[in-house]
Parts: sequence; structure tokens; C-alpha cells
Amino acid sequence: MVGFDADDTLWHSETYFKEAHAEFERILGGYVDLADAAVHDRLLATERENIKLFGYGAKGMALSMIETSIALTQSRISAADIHRLIDLGKSILQHKVELLPGVREAVQAVAAMHRVVLITKGDLFHQERKVADSGMADLFHRIEIVSEKDERSYARLFEEFGVEAAQFVMVGNSLKSDIAPVLALGGHGIHVPYPLVWALDRADIDPNHPRFASVEKAADVPATLSRWD
Amino acid sequence: MVGFDADDTLWHSETYFKEAHAEFERILGGYVDLADAAVHDRLLATERENIKLFGYGAKGMALSMIETSIALTQSRISAADIHRLIDLGKSILQHKVELLPGVREAVQAVAAMHRVVLITKGDLFHQERKVADSGMADLFHRIEIVSEKDERSYARLFEEFGVEAAQFVMVGNSLKSDIAPVLALGGHGIHVPYPLVWALDRADIDPNHPRFASVEKAADVPATLSRWD
Repeated sequence: MVGFDADDTLWHSETYFKEAHAEFERILGGYVDLADAAVHDRLLATERENIKLFGYGAKGMALSMIETSIALTQSRISAADIHRLIDLGKSILQHKVELLPGVREAVQAVAAMHRVVLITKGDLFHQERKVADSGMADLFHRIEIVSEKDERSYARLFEEFGVEAAQFVMVGNSLKSDIAPVLALGGHGIHVPYPLVWALDRADIDPNHPRFASVEKAADVPATLSRWD
Repeated sequence: MVGFDADDTLWHSETYFKEAHAEFERILGGYVDLADAAVHDRLLATERENIKLFGYGAKGMALSMIETSIALTQSRISAADIHRLIDLGKSILQHKVELLPGVREAVQAVAAMHRVVLITKGDLFHQERKVADSGMADLFHRIEIVSEKDERSYARLFEEFGVEAAQFVMVGNSLKSDIAPVLALGGHGIHVPYPLVWALDRADIDPNHPRFASVEKAADVPATLSRWD
């Protein structure tokens, strides 16, 4: 069985968050000296704290932005600018799904040989909409949206799928969420990097791990799987 | 198979939202004449619109409150008061789980006779935490968190569970989410009312529907099931 991650593996996602963060800095630039204020670090610290309560996704991002903006401006930020921060969250939720190059063909090729499932983390409502809008839902045997992609989540999914970890390959852009926990359970991981990685989603993997491969693009996935077969 | 709803069926939920709404009105009362401003209706209208983008839950509520407060005060609301609205959302997410009376015993009694599953809608992260904190997770054969409880969702779940609608009973407080779609699919519904119903979660059911029962409290559920058996 082959699992595919969704955000930044099948379609763009982090790019939109990055754009929202840049706009956040521009708005804050009206109140504080961006060179001194470490706006980005403060936002990241707020997000890291709030994620325990909010989970992942654009609504939590918008709330963390508002909270950070109030703290950084010592409550001087205007209601109109706070409204712009809400709109940043909405713009991510409304963004149309843009598939990454070669992804549909790669998943189709893999699906012809193996059972494929989609495993994504984050906001249930937003992820469901993206899966529907992607037009790729029918390619997947199962679509699983989880709140966190850790060893516990994957172990539960393997049980639900009735698959042994050793017979499972996860394909994704995040070493932390897609690769490390699956390797730890005895499964395989194929890393397909995305140019941007969110600071809270990083990890290191031994590049020589026997059940790990890193490829340049989705189109290289089927060949790696054939080699492992 | 018997499905149980969670919020306002197993544990309190709407009470906390209601308290947050009351505090929202108090905060807005510092800016507008509450008698004239129809604060509650405006919030509901914003929530109704935003739910298409946000889905259900406390993060979306907090964002809708902020948006409504900015509109109603014509941007006069202070950043400090907006921070209080974020805290209202957080307080709901942090609230400890308070089981409704007799619920654990009722689920245990039903679980001794039937396969029981938990089906709840809303924010994945928050719902998972509540299920874990409730100490009731082990009683359920499956725990399903869905973004919307409509006919399509239930039909998909019945397929995943391998159960016919006619062999399924849903127990819950919401006529709209727990009862109507299950009856429409040919299943059974037991309504256990909660004193509060969110305005966006209302529906009418024919009280004489042959596959419908309304009971006063969770403890009455096992007897209704026995009668149907």
C-alpha cells in the first residue's frame, strides 16, 4: 500500500501561508520597525504555543496573527488592520487547488500497481474541500484526515487499513510528518521535497536509511517503488 | 449498530458557546446600544456565512465574533477587546469535558448489546481532545469525526461500517444532524434533547415517525432500543 501526503505533495499549500506571512509583516510594518521587532519569530512563537489548542490550519494561523499583532503593537493595531488579518486566513481557505506538476500521472501510475491512500493532517473542513476540488479523490482507496501525523496516528491507520508497516510506503514532502514516523514503525518513505518547509514541520532523516529514498519530483515515485518491489 | 453523537449528547458543549455569546454581547455593549444593534442576529448572520469557509467550531466562532465586532462598531473596537474575543474561543477549546448525567452507564448498557460508534461533527483537533479527555473512547468500536452530518456523510459511514441503514440507530440531541438524515436513509433515531440548541442546528421531525423516538435522558436509551429489538 502506498500513502500520499496532500499539502505540498499533491498541491501547493505552504506558498500561500508564506504569502500570508509576508502580508502580515507588511501590515505590522505600519506600527513597528520590522528590522527590530522580529515579527516573524514572534508569530512563530505564538503559533507554536497555540497549535496545542488550535491544531493546524488557516483559522488558527489567522487567530495567532491577530494575537501576535496585538502584542507586538501594544494594542495599537487598528480594527481595520485586524480585519485584514482575518481576510488573510480566508484567502488561504478560498484559494483554488493547484496541483503540482506530474502529480496526477504519478498517482495514477502507482494506483495501477498498488492500493493508494491519501493521508493528510490539518483542518478537516478545509482538507475535505481541497480533496474534492482536486478532482483526485476517486484515485484513492481511502482518504484519511488526521489531526497529527505521528507514530500513533500511522499505527492506528495501518490497523484500520489492515496493512503491515513493512508493506507500506509513504510519499510526502515533510520529513517530520510523512517520513520519520513511518520509518520508525518499520515502513518505507519516499521524500519529494517542496521548495518551502514550515518551520514547525522540519526534521532530519539519515539519507542512507535502507527504507528511505528522496526523489526530485512526483514523476520519479513509480520508479522508486518498482526498485523496492 | 448504535451511533452516539458527542457534543450535547455525551457532554456539555452548547452551554459554553452560549456563555461565550453572552460575554461577546457584554463586550459589544461598551460600543453600541445592545437594544438597537441586534448583536446576536448580526453574529449569527456572520457565522452562517463563514461556516461555508470555516466549518464548525470555536476557532471559526472567534473569527466570526471579531469580524462582527469590527462591523458593528465601525472599527471602533479596541485591540484589547478583540484579544478578549480570541480568549473566548480559547476558553471553549480549553474547557474540561463534563459528561451529562447517566451517559457513561447508558453507553455501557448499549455497548453490552450492540456495536456502538461515536459520530461527531466539527473541529477535528478539538473533538479528538474531548473524546480522549472523556475517558469514554474505549467504549466505542469506531470514532468518526466528520465535517458535516448530512445524508452523504452517514451513507459513507454506513458503507465503511458495513451496516445497513435499517440496522442502524443514531442517538443524539440534534434533530437536524443526528436524526433527520438517518431517518431519510432508512435508519432509526433516538432524540435526547439538550436544553440549548444552536440556531444553525435546528430541524423539525414528525413525532409519529415509526423509526423515531424522543426520550428525556440518556438513561432511557437502552429501554427504547430493547423495545425496537
